Amino acid sequence: MTNDAYIELEKRYRRIGILNETVSFLHWDTATAMPKGASSARAEQFAQLKSVIHTLTSCPEIGELIGKAKASKYNLNGWQQANLNQMVRQWTKATAVPEELVVAFSKACSACEASWRKARPEDDFRSVKPLLQNVLNLTRETAAVKAEALGLSTYDALLDDYEPGYCESEVEGIFQDIASFLPNIIDDARSAQSARPTPIMPIGPFPILAQKNLGQYFMKALGFDFAHGRLDTSLHPFCGGTPDDVRITSRYDEANFISGLMGIFHETGHAMYEQGLPARWRYQPVGYSLGMGMHESQSLLIEMQVCRSRPFLHWAAPILRKAFNGQNTAWDAENLFRLHTHVKPDFIRVDADEITYPAHIIIRYRLERALLAEDLSLNDLPTAWNDMMKELLGIVPPSDREGCLQDLHWYDGAWGYFPTYTLGAITAAQLYTTARETNPNIEDGIRIGDFFPLISWLRTHIHGVARLKSSSELLTNISGEPLNPKFFKDHLQVRYLN
Amino acid sequence: MTNDAYIELEKRYRRIGILNETVSFLHWDTATAMPKGASSARAEQFAQLKSVIHTLTSCPEIGELIGKAKASKYNLNGWQQANLNQMVRQWTKATAVPEELVVAFSKACSACEASWRKARPEDDFRSVKPLLQNVLNLTRETAAVKAEALGLSTYDALLDDYEPGYCESEVEGIFQDIASFLPNIIDDARSAQSARPTPIMPIGPFPILAQKNLGQYFMKALGFDFAHGRLDTSLHPFCGGTPDDVRITSRYDEANFISGLMGIFHETGHAMYEQGLPARWRYQPVGYSLGMGMHESQSLLIEMQVCRSRPFLHWAAPILRKAFNGQNTAWDAENLFRLHTHVKPDFIRVDADEITYPAHIIIRYRLERALLAEDLSLNDLPTAWNDMMKELLGIVPPSDREGCLQDLHWYDGAWGYFPTYTLGAITAAQLYTTARETNPNIEDGIRIGDFFPLISWLRTHIHGVARLKSSSELLTNISGEPLNPKFFKDHLQVRYLN
Repeated sequence: MTNDAYIELEKRYRRIGILNETVSFLHWDTATAMPKGASSARAEQFAQLKSVIHTLTSCPEIGELIGKAKASKYNLNGWQQANLNQMVRQWTKATAVPEELVVAFSKACSACEASWRKARPEDDFRSVKPLLQNVLNLTRETAAVKAEALGLSTYDALLDDYEPGYCESEVEGIFQDIASFLPNIIDDARSAQSARPTPIMPIGPFPILAQKNLGQYFMKALGFDFAHGRLDTSLHPFCGGTPDDVRITSRYDEANFISGLMGIFHETGHAMYEQGLPARWRYQPVGYSLGMGMHESQSLLIEMQVCRSRPFLHWAAPILRKAFNGQNTAWDAENLFRLHTHVKPDFIRVDADEITYPAHIIIRYRLERALLAEDLSLNDLPTAWNDMMKELLGIVPPSDREGCLQDLHWYDGAWGYFPTYTLGAITAAQLYTTARETNPNIEDGIRIGDFFPLISWLRTHIHGVARLKSSSELLTNISGEPLNPKFFKDHLQVRYLN
Repeated sequence: MTNDAYIELEKRYRRIGILNETVSFLHWDTATAMPKGASSARAEQFAQLKSVIHTLTSCPEIGELIGKAKASKYNLNGWQQANLNQMVRQWTKATAVPEELVVAFSKACSACEASWRKARPEDDFRSVKPLLQNVLNLTRETAAVKAEALGLSTYDALLDDYEPGYCESEVEGIFQDIASFLPNIIDDARSAQSARPTPIMPIGPFPILAQKNLGQYFMKALGFDFAHGRLDTSLHPFCGGTPDDVRITSRYDEANFISGLMGIFHETGHAMYEQGLPARWRYQPVGYSLGMGMHESQSLLIEMQVCRSRPFLHWAAPILRKAFNGQNTAWDAENLFRLHTHVKPDFIRVDADEITYPAHIIIRYRLERALLAEDLSLNDLPTAWNDMMKELLGIVPPSDREGCLQDLHWYDGAWGYFPTYTLGAITAAQLYTTARETNPNIEDGIRIGDFFPLISWLRTHIHGVARLKSSSELLTNISGEPLNPKFFKDHLQVRYLN
């Protein structure tokens, strides 16, 4: 009386899901704890684990079981059907890529990542370039076989790994819209900004322990469950671990607490998504978060939409003042709001403000397409990077460290990933606009540090739904339409020009 | 022109070795970083990884390849032959235990360990007892099938997991010798001690960061390579990780720096063994350290033989004084020597002095044999524990927290492990006596903080040899005879009665 093939598939994917969790913890360890000399041994560990997982994911029995599960006369419920659809998608992708290529790609990424960790502080693009070329070649090779299997263009096959359902042409349209909007809004925001009092920077030092304790305080307030997660330190903030043990990181500057704290807010947004996934569907393909665009929407909703807003900063200002024993007017809520929404074109993506950030993404999106298409060689990347910075933001980085060496992504094999940051920013605006309109308790709560209405809304409409719906279906269900850049543009105009 | 079957075996064991490293890092993470709420998910991860490894280790092809490798006309060199012998041993043990039992045992241990972490601070043996019973039952079941396959007694099959080559009757003989020697030496040492000035305890607080920094200073001096290892904090000090990334831990008491520092010395001894293993044989069965007895000999050689000796403490005293800004005569070398060799029967094994320590081990050895043989039930364990403490050390723990709940071992499935501590202490005395006799530079170096002669000797004679020889062969090669308790007894008499 049951769909036995489907039940067997759940059992197999459970095993795969658990093994994937071990990879996730090794990634966390690599970034937070592992000593430098262990990187080649760690690369071997990743390669072996991924090979084991690849074998389990792409074995012919999965294909046979999928066929039987589809043909079974016993109906699946909505979640089970969505789970089976996700299995088909995963299996198609997994079987497209030969195991040797998976192992070679994993090793190339580990070697390149380790080299980047050395090259970046030393501003030495040349030393990492051959390893990056290797990663790029293997990325192209992998994308080509996936594209073939999925019937997509090469770049769409890469996009599909990070935000399924979006295609190059849709992204291109949205990015052209944003790119043409940016120059004016940046100018207008800077004019409006110069007409207001100059924000006063609180003077440190801000002890790292105090910053970390404050971050944990806000994480608790936002609903982060420390029985199922941690906060640590790494070079580049990230959200790792697993839904039952979410590991977020930030990094701290004793002279400026804002960047570290905003890093924590950002990663807490990611973490809340993971902690809110349905326990019933743990380890199953349908039980994971949607693509990185939707994931980024959750981090940006918390960081940008909420934690840099007036209502939030009016609640948080006295807490910040107390944490750092602040004395002067720099700690007033309105000054903090001006600081947290200050617009200034700069070199580093992760420190960029909300308005110039999309320019950083469009640069990377255009460069990675050119590199993948072999319209640009890695030899010319530093110059091309600087030229685009000049064109879109009017500034030129003084070094590759502040240019094409700044982000881990490409060096770790994440090509097609960058667009999801800006897709996420647009999604965040669309979701939060809808949330506030449909439930006034959300913003009223934030004014007094009660995030329960907000988190409950997110749990109900997004986190708890996992992959039952696609990003586009979810967005349409919630807001009445698919992704529309107007929400993001409206948000920027209200926040920066009023 | 090659032994192809042997080459294929090396390839397979390399894979197994690398996957085992991932298990090792998850163990480190569990003890140092993992939040409480993640313990059941972690148990799933261990179970799945161990199941993958068990499948690879016990698959019939390994047996076939072993047969072919043995029958090949191409000779193996000494290392390769020893490697093949280790493969045979591992394969015999792996195939003896059905996979379901491996998984059940792993899950039982993870659940029991998590429960113990809660029960110990709450002094609640009752709550963890059913989980411990489960671990005990599965230990007995596993030992029985291994004993059958290896042609050993049940307890010898357990011993064989931790110190291959020793049997119950040999251990029993050595332990009876030590047990009959202990009461007199404890009395005599305490008499001698009371005739000397009472040692003065330096007064804290000793900031935890200062203790950790000092520990790292001594680790570096001893030759620990921080490019391939770390020092962290956990409830129970341990040495984990892998030879390329050795993770040691200690724990700190702000009122007393000695226990934390000695923990670091102890684990550094373990770490030096791992870091000194031959890179050529990495991941191969012959390339690992010998049993836990030999491993413990390395930690005790550093902690007990070296770091609690007069020559070491005369060098270290001014460093300790400076690190904690010590002012009075408590920081004089002779006072520190008296403190570090102070004899006092107490409840906690890990804090026990060198002379009373073997009594703690003999208690656990006798109790675990009785529990395994069903001559004792877990209901009666707390009382039996206290009775033996009374008999051997003349004191009774005021709580189970200071009694049968103090050690993780049994709760984590390590039965047959405890004897290796005292076998290690005896081995350490035998090795260090021989080392000093054959190379006077060793002790001369220690007097001035130069550990290079000592570590070089250990690298040459023990670390770099890995499993090329058995513990007994190694000991006979080095000292001219197999394990003999007289070296340990002589050492105690010289140190405590002179």
